[in-house]
Amino acid sequence: MSDRATVPAPRRLTRWEHRTDVPLLVASLLYLAGYAVRVLVPPHTEPWNDAALAVIGATWFLFALDYGVRLRLSGLGRRFVRVHWLDTLVLLLPPLRPLRVVQILTRVQLHRERPRLSLYGRVMAYAGTSALVLGFTASLAVYQQERDAPDSTIRTFGDAVWWACATLTTVGYGDAVPVTPLGRVIAAALMACGLALLGAVTGSFSSWLVQVFARQQDDTGPPESR
Amino acid sequence: MSDRATVPAPRRLTRWEHRTDVPLLVASLLYLAGYAVRVLVPPHTEPWNDAALAVIGATWFLFALDYGVRLRLSGLGRRFVRVHWLDTLVLLLPPLRPLRVVQILTRVQLHRERPRLSLYGRVMAYAGTSALVLGFTASLAVYQQERDAPDSTIRTFGDAVWWACATLTTVGYGDAVPVTPLGRVIAAALMACGLALLGAVTGSFSSWLVQVFARQQDDTGPPESR
Amino acid sequence: MSDRATVPAPRRLTRWEHRTDVPLLVASLLYLAGYAVRVLVPPHTEPWNDAALAVIGATWFLFALDYGVRLRLSGLGRRFVRVHWLDTLVLLLPPLRPLRVVQILTRVQLHRERPRLSLYGRVMAYAGTSALVLGFTASLAVYQQERDAPDSTIRTFGDAVWWACATLTTVGYGDAVPVTPLGRVIAAALMACGLALLGAVTGSFSSWLVQVFARQQDDTGPPESR
Amino acid sequence: MSDRATVPAPRRLTRWEHRTDVPLLVASLLYLAGYAVRVLVPPHTEPWNDAALAVIGATWFLFALDYGVRLRLSGLGRRFVRVHWLDTLVLLLPPLRPLRVVQILTRVQLHRERPRLSLYGRVMAYAGTSALVLGFTASLAVYQQERDAPDSTIRTFGDAVWWACATLTTVGYGDAVPVTPLGRVIAAALMACGLALLGAVTGSFSSWLVQVFARQQDDTGPPESR
Repeated sequence: MSDRATVPAPRRLTRWEHRTDVPLLVASLLYLAGYAVRVLVPPHTEPWNDAALAVIGATWFLFALDYGVRLRLSGLGRRFVRVHWLDTLVLLLPPLRPLRVVQILTRVQLHRERPRLSLYGRVMAYAGTSALVLGFTASLAVYQQERDAPDSTIRTFGDAVWWACATLTTVGYGDAVPVTPLGRVIAAALMACGLALLGAVTGSFSSWLVQVFARQQDDTGPPESR
Repeated sequence: MSDRATVPAPRRLTRWEHRTDVPLLVASLLYLAGYAVRVLVPPHTEPWNDAALAVIGATWFLFALDYGVRLRLSGLGRRFVRVHWLDTLVLLLPPLRPLRVVQILTRVQLHRERPRLSLYGRVMAYAGTSALVLGFTASLAVYQQERDAPDSTIRTFGDAVWWACATLTTVGYGDAVPVTPLGRVIAAALMACGLALLGAVTGSFSSWLVQVFARQQDDTGPPESR
Repeated sequence: MSDRATVPAPRRLTRWEHRTDVPLLVASLLYLAGYAVRVLVPPHTEPWNDAALAVIGATWFLFALDYGVRLRLSGLGRRFVRVHWLDTLVLLLPPLRPLRVVQILTRVQLHRERPRLSLYGRVMAYAGTSALVLGFTASLAVYQQERDAPDSTIRTFGDAVWWACATLTTVGYGDAVPVTPLGRVIAAALMACGLALLGAVTGSFSSWLVQVFARQQDDTGPPESR
Repeated sequence: MSDRATVPAPRRLTRWEHRTDVPLLVASLLYLAGYAVRVLVPPHTEPWNDAALAVIGATWFLFALDYGVRLRLSGLGRRFVRVHWLDTLVLLLPPLRPLRVVQILTRVQLHRERPRLSLYGRVMAYAGTSALVLGFTASLAVYQQERDAPDSTIRTFGDAVWWACATLTTVGYGDAVPVTPLGRVIAAALMACGLALLGAVTGSFSSWLVQVFARQQDDTGPPESR
């Protein structure tokens, strides 16, 4: 009666996602590390570059496999591509793959037990982690584009991280700025995503602070009434 | 009894707006394309420039016609000019006309069926599209003003788009800045509108994220209770 | 029985404020105009400078008179200085006086009749007008400080207005920046006030947009049910 | 029956915190003053530097003592380190110690009597004071790092304060920017904290303004109905 074949597809999908959470999280982190090694290690440092390439290829294969299995289990057919557009995008545009780290981290944390953070705390944690991962990835990508460009102001990876900080927070000093077309496209993407994510962090922090102060007020009655 | 003449004016106005939605949307896009051609194509490239001028003239005529018909059908007389101030402004200041694209897109989407996006999603879509259209138009207008100015830092259309990105997100690197008086007026207008529009995008994204997390919390009870 | 002496002080204060609204509004605008003339007209252009000085002196006298009468009528004694701290500050620091324009405009608009704008509309109008008046005053004050400073990047009043726009919206290009200590103090004050005021404009615009979209949703039922 | 030993630990902790509020507030201010003297006074100005060092040492000892006593009274054992993570962090990273000023000020104000400020007023006061203390501390720390760096644009303490203002408000002109690695790390920390704190100030100001206008509307009925 409760044999495997009759289990509805979405439930098997949920089970699959449960089981693959931790492996995929590890794969995402490995991909990010591989990409960082590719960018930061000098061009012809052989063992490192080969290892990084192998890791990037292997993790990409794992993500493609997971995408295929979930597409089949979901029973959505082609609609899966549109419904899970973020997964599709991440599969096609490798540099966006680190976003999976955030997605999976959130899922793992939700499944484990009742979340310990308050609602605003979780929004802050999610948006803040996304912003950090995005900022780190954008630093790597912009550094790769800009380091050898003439008139570049982003010469070291430190410059790239500094640029990402100033951009994400919309401070924008202008002392380190991308000058290549591709670097500017990456920067514009970072601005758009970063603005929304940091706006969510700021907004949630504000709401949380108001909540904390509102509670303190309730707790602190006049001393004599205690 | 229900003959044409007794149909109240506002209802005939609604019917008119229903019918002209798609033609006006096409006209707005044509106007934007014509303006882009005028700015981006070199000065004496004859067939293109003539075609662009013709398109701009024709679409302006269409908008004026639509304005006149709606003024008559509304039965508001002169008050129409003040009530529909955005339409009036757009009629007089051609570079603002692309704003009609957003206005009409929103109306088309609302009329079609029950909107599929959530409330915050629609606010984000509306404000985000407005910001994109505004940014693109401001890029064209600033490029037109600045490209030949001495000491200009906006030499190519790519520079103008990069400047518009940095301005809309309030990052403001300062590597590409308008230096002509008219360029600065356009920039100030973009800042004022862009700030409000992107604030709406950010705020709605934040509210939407809090909503999503609040729902996830409700859905995820303790595992044993399922 | 209802003779003057028994009218409670606060009520006489309200009556006084009613009667002086329009004269004080005119005086504020005159003060702002006088200050603008003093800054913008070349140093030894005699008739203008003398007139501007006379206007500044006369309006200052009027504000001091109003402050004194209100202090007496309020019946608060010395506490008036602290309760109405904005008035006190404005009396001592002349360049802040234009703020009275906003304060009085708001009071006039509220007294006239039921306000016609929605709640968010009024917050936007108030915060937006305050930001404009503040920005204009800061432009004048910074221009006065910076125009003759060595290495100054603010050489014309147009530069000062451009700087104020970039600062109020937190874009901050950095192409026009105050370099004198006093100019920087004025800039910091503008940043602090402007940030809060424009934040209020942005926040209210966002809330208003969400409200408008929420209403549209309610109005637009499925077409067949109409 | 009600002898000392039976008083539950948390209550004795509360009593301890009550008694140490004012001394710790004074100690925090002394620490901040000592740090400021260390940074701002020329290197070999003997009496001042020695006094500052003594004050810094003594206040650090007081904070460590307070931390130890609270750890014991709380009855939390090692968990205290994690629960009161801000206190732990402040104990280890001296430059963050001024944050205690804000924390203690808030506690003092809450204990004294029913707070006089509205909810939003208190959030604004707390976040604004935190931002000021953070900005001042960051100015000192960045000035210490940058003043002797080659190509530095922060040469005087005034420059550092100006930089902190432009950074906290996210204006970011870029005329004064840290160039040393440690200076940039401090700047990034200021951006992250400042953004959240000033976002809370702006958000609360906006909410407060909406509240004030909503009340005015209720109070101002049509004149004849009064």
